[in-house]
Amino acid sequence: MGISSDHIWQHLDGLTKPPRSLGRLEELAARLCLVQQTLLPQTAPRRLVIFTADHGVASAGVTIWPSSVTSLMVRNMCAGGAASTVMARQTNTEVILVNVGTADEPMSQPPQRGAGVRYRSRRVRAGTRNLAEEPALTVEEFWQGWNIGAAEARAAVDQHVRIVLAGEMGIGNTTPTACLAMLLADLPVLAAVGRGAGADDITLERKRNIVEKAVARARTLWNADSLAAIAAVSGVELAAMAGFYAEAAAAGLTVILDGAVASAAALIAEYQSPGTARSMIAAHLSTEPSHSAVLAHLDLTPFLDWGLRLGEGTGALLLLPLLDAAAAISCEMASLQSLGISPKVNP
Amino acid sequence: MGISSDHIWQHLDGLTKPPRSLGRLEELAARLCLVQQTLLPQTAPRRLVIFTADHGVASAGVTIWPSSVTSLMVRNMCAGGAASTVMARQTNTEVILVNVGTADEPMSQPPQRGAGVRYRSRRVRAGTRNLAEEPALTVEEFWQGWNIGAAEARAAVDQHVRIVLAGEMGIGNTTPTACLAMLLADLPVLAAVGRGAGADDITLERKRNIVEKAVARARTLWNADSLAAIAAVSGVELAAMAGFYAEAAAAGLTVILDGAVASAAALIAEYQSPGTARSMIAAHLSTEPSHSAVLAHLDLTPFLDWGLRLGEGTGALLLLPLLDAAAAISCEMASLQSLGISPKVNP
Repeated sequence: MGISSDHIWQHLDGLTKPPRSLGRLEELAARLCLVQQTLLPQTAPRRLVIFTADHGVASAGVTIWPSSVTSLMVRNMCAGGAASTVMARQTNTEVILVNVGTADEPMSQPPQRGAGVRYRSRRVRAGTRNLAEEPALTVEEFWQGWNIGAAEARAAVDQHVRIVLAGEMGIGNTTPTACLAMLLADLPVLAAVGRGAGADDITLERKRNIVEKAVARARTLWNADSLAAIAAVSGVELAAMAGFYAEAAAAGLTVILDGAVASAAALIAEYQSPGTARSMIAAHLSTEPSHSAVLAHLDLTPFLDWGLRLGEGTGALLLLPLLDAAAAISCEMASLQSLGISPKVNP
Repeated sequence: MGISSDHIWQHLDGLTKPPRSLGRLEELAARLCLVQQTLLPQTAPRRLVIFTADHGVASAGVTIWPSSVTSLMVRNMCAGGAASTVMARQTNTEVILVNVGTADEPMSQPPQRGAGVRYRSRRVRAGTRNLAEEPALTVEEFWQGWNIGAAEARAAVDQHVRIVLAGEMGIGNTTPTACLAMLLADLPVLAAVGRGAGADDITLERKRNIVEKAVARARTLWNADSLAAIAAVSGVELAAMAGFYAEAAAAGLTVILDGAVASAAALIAEYQSPGTARSMIAAHLSTEPSHSAVLAHLDLTPFLDWGLRLGEGTGALLLLPLLDAAAAISCEMASLQSLGISPKVNP
């Protein structure tokens, strides 16, 4: 059975403040209580799993960054110098970096322990095939990615983690993100394709053409095998995140959803394991144009609107201390009743 | 001298992320660096000083809450059960509660140490006079309040605090807030008066009439003595916050500005000590209608828009962990140059 939204609001409205005077912070508390089915929600221990992979389509001119940046950023994360790893330290969040498919193996040796990031090499492929020309992944490769993600969720459960976040790093990955938003949330191409990590006008136009054609080809596969269609316009890190989300939700963990790429993975998870999004809290609204409609499709309302578009889990990390505050409000505030406070009858 | 905004953005744009891809978080980092004149800003130690007082005008039907709530909330804060004290614990923020003028003395004995809140009784008056009928404070009383606030700022400096927040609790204090927004930021009455802690339509209309007349009377005092005009529509906690802000800014502390009432106090501080707002970071935009225009008058841009309207410093407290994240970004991220990353020349 569990507790209803009405019951949660009755609790929050009875705390020592004018009702709803903490605005969105109370809405965040209410969402957290609803997801965890308790008035005493927990926000720790918490873990960010970053999935990283390369994309064949990056060579087709959809991005201004070379694919080699993916591996350079893997090293940067392992050394603790990326935005995600800096913000994770700041918020007491454990970080595991799972390489599911960079073009080359970026780490010749395991990272030093000092930076606090654990690295696992689980490369399914050396980058995806170029989705502008052929299916990015086979169904088998898709499930390999999914299973790696699902195993990470089970490891988090085994290690008593309560809150999980997924992040990604992969040059080119807003292109499959746009394809998945079209395929799984019915977005038109203009609403689906954005500038990602800074595409200029010419790059953006090229990206739109590639996405439109790739989705049209994927749709021809849909009736025979919807997973083949999804795999064709996906990425290994997207498949892994989807498996991670689905398994984490099924196991009762609370999932903090990051930005546009993470939300495309959430679309896959929700398609494959309906109900996954009910365990999710959408951290923020990205500037990628698809994000708002994709969140609406998942029946999720984002909390921060701070114009983030970096990925790596940074948006989800940014919400964590606000989630801590929301939980503390619900758990620790005194009630109006206990203080004998009520409004005047006839003011 | 010091460092310019251009210099700060050059630093932030050179970190390992697409430029500006952390959106408002980078803007917060830039503001913090500018206020502290360094690329290595500090966000601790930090202290919230809550000033509390009653308002004679509460008896004139401008609020649905009885004045006795002020003292009940003082006890609640001392016991650690108010939103402010819960969020302060959560964010490692020291709390000092300074009673500058409640109607009665709410604490028969000092609070227990356990809740972590220090209480100081410094009552200038037992509530202000009713500003609907006569000046709320004399100029002398106003300065008594100001000096108590200024002394708190000096104590913070002496005790090596780096970041200060001020909060307030005082049933009726959005009425002087509206008066000050009209008097010092030239707002029209409809834009200045809001529902405060939940005024209904009849109460709101009564509040508008009282504010309009009180400001008209205060304006007749302005030419002879502008501080007499301000004191007439002020409150002891507003005067104390103004003194606190002015002294903290003069001493080089970073001030995190809370909501509508705090911003009215900031108007007084900026009027009396021009330049005070340059040391401020506006935490959030309140739902009180005056707030947006008052912040613009102070040349401040709020960071969170979460619909808060509680006061007590809660909005400023909510920004603190985001300020920590912003500082960490500036202090700890690796540079693109150090990793040898740059966009493709011809994508």
